[in-house]
Amino acid sequence: MTNINRPLILVTNDDGITAPGIHALVDAVKELGEVIVVAPDSPQSGTGHAVTIGLPLRLDKVTEFEGIESWQCSGTPVDCVKLARDKILHRKPDLCVSGINHGANHSINIIYSGTMSAAMEAAIEGIPSIGFSLLDYTFHADFTVAKMIAKSLAKRMLQNKMPEHILLNVNIPKTSLADYKGMKICRQAYAKWAEEFEQRVDPRGKDYYWMTGKFINMDTGTETDAQALAEGYASVVPVKFDFTDTQTKSWLENEWRDMLS
Amino acid sequence: MTNINRPLILVTNDDGITAPGIHALVDAVKELGEVIVVAPDSPQSGTGHAVTIGLPLRLDKVTEFEGIESWQCSGTPVDCVKLARDKILHRKPDLCVSGINHGANHSINIIYSGTMSAAMEAAIEGIPSIGFSLLDYTFHADFTVAKMIAKSLAKRMLQNKMPEHILLNVNIPKTSLADYKGMKICRQAYAKWAEEFEQRVDPRGKDYYWMTGKFINMDTGTETDAQALAEGYASVVPVKFDFTDTQTKSWLENEWRDMLS
Repeated sequence: MTNINRPLILVTNDDGITAPGIHALVDAVKELGEVIVVAPDSPQSGTGHAVTIGLPLRLDKVTEFEGIESWQCSGTPVDCVKLARDKILHRKPDLCVSGINHGANHSINIIYSGTMSAAMEAAIEGIPSIGFSLLDYTFHADFTVAKMIAKSLAKRMLQNKMPEHILLNVNIPKTSLADYKGMKICRQAYAKWAEEFEQRVDPRGKDYYWMTGKFINMDTGTETDAQALAEGYASVVPVKFDFTDTQTKSWLENEWRDMLS
Repeated sequence: MTNINRPLILVTNDDGITAPGIHALVDAVKELGEVIVVAPDSPQSGTGHAVTIGLPLRLDKVTEFEGIESWQCSGTPVDCVKLARDKILHRKPDLCVSGINHGANHSINIIYSGTMSAAMEAAIEGIPSIGFSLLDYTFHADFTVAKMIAKSLAKRMLQNKMPEHILLNVNIPKTSLADYKGMKICRQAYAKWAEEFEQRVDPRGKDYYWMTGKFINMDTGTETDAQALAEGYASVVPVKFDFTDTQTKSWLENEWRDMLS
C-alpha cells in the first residue's frame, strides 16, 4: 500500500537483483522512505543505454527483499526504469538510486555502464537520480563505506531542493571506514579503454574474440573523478544528458557558414 | 592493400550490414578515400553504447560491397568499432561514418541509438566521426538527399582541420531533392519518450510486455535539432562525450560544502 506521505525511492542496478550490491543499497536507503526495487533478472554489465525493442519483456514479482516490494525484469537496466514508471509505480518517485555497482564507473565508463544508464533514464524522466559504484569487482566486496555514502547522499537529495534533472555519478574507493578520506565534487576524466581482443579458435576451427582491455587515464588536469579516487576520496560527478558541444557549435557556425542555410 | 596516401574511412551502422542505409552511405563516401566496412551481422537498433563482455564475438569477411573490404560482426555497433580498430584497420582512420540510419536519431534519441553510439566510440578514439539518420523508418526509404549530405559533410571533414574529438549527429528530413531546404547547426532538443508498455498474455497464460511509446518534444526554445527538422532542414548537432554538468558542479560545491572534503 502506497503511503503518499513518505518519499518514494526506486532502486535498480545492472548486476542483477541477486547481487550483494543492490542488497547493500536497499539496506542503505530503506529507512528514508518507501522503497520499490525493479532490477534485471540477470547481470547486465556493459549494456549502456540499451533498450529492448525487438523482443517482449517479462516482469515478475519476487520476494528477494524482506518487506519490500520487488520485481525482476528480463530486460536492460533502462527497460527496468521505463517499466517501473509505466506499470509498477503509482506516482513519480522522489529519488532513483542505482547500484551499488560491483566495479568502477568513473570517467568514460559512465557511457558503457548499465548502472549509470538506469540513473540517467530516471533523470530524463525528471526523477532526481544517483548511480553508486564501488571500486571492487568481487562478488563479496565490503560495502560498508559505500552504504554510508549512499545513505547520506540519498538523505540529502530528499531533504534539499535540487536543480532540475539532477543526476550524480558516485564512485567509492575500496577502503575501510577508518581510512576513508571523504567526498569530492569532480568532473568526468578524459580516459579510454585500449582494447586488445584475444583471438581463439573454437572446437570447429572457427575464430572467435574475447574483449580484453587496459584502462588509460589521458587526463592530466585537476578536479577529475579518476584523480579523486586515486587519492582515496569518493568522487561525485554531476551529469547531464544534453550532449551538445556548445564550443564546437560556435566553431561550426563560423567555419561552415558557406554550407549552412 | 592499404594505400597510405588516401584517407581511410571506416563505415558502420546499427541496422546491420545488409540494410539499404549502409549501402547508400558506402556509395556516398567511396570516392573520398579507402573505405572499410565493419558492421553488425543483424539489426542492433536501440542497443545504445552496449558492449559485449560476457560472450565472445565473431568476425567474418563478407562480399556485401563490391570492391570494398567488408566485415560482419556478431556484436553491437560499439563492438564493431572496437574490433575494427584492434583487428582490421592497419592505421587510425581519418573519418568514421555511421548509418545511414532508417529512422530519426535527433534530440534524446542519441542516447538509445546504436548508430550514434558507434560514432561516439570512434570519437572517443580520436577519430572524427559522423552519424547520419534519415527520418524514414521504411526499408526502401529514398536516400537521395541523405547521400548528398553525407558526401558533402564527409568531404568537408576530410579537407579541413577539425576540433579534436569532433562528433556530429546529422538528421535528414524525409524530402525530395527539390524540396530540401538546407542544413542548420543545432543544439540537442530536450525531449523524451512517454512509454506505454502493451501487456499481453502468452499461450501459457503468462504476462509479457511490448515497449511502445510516444515521442514528446518538451523543448520550446530555439536552435534545436527537432525544430530544424520540423521546418524541413537537416540538423547537425556537435556532440561531446564529457557529460559533466558544470553548472550543477558549481551549485553542489557551494550547497554541499558541509559534506565535502
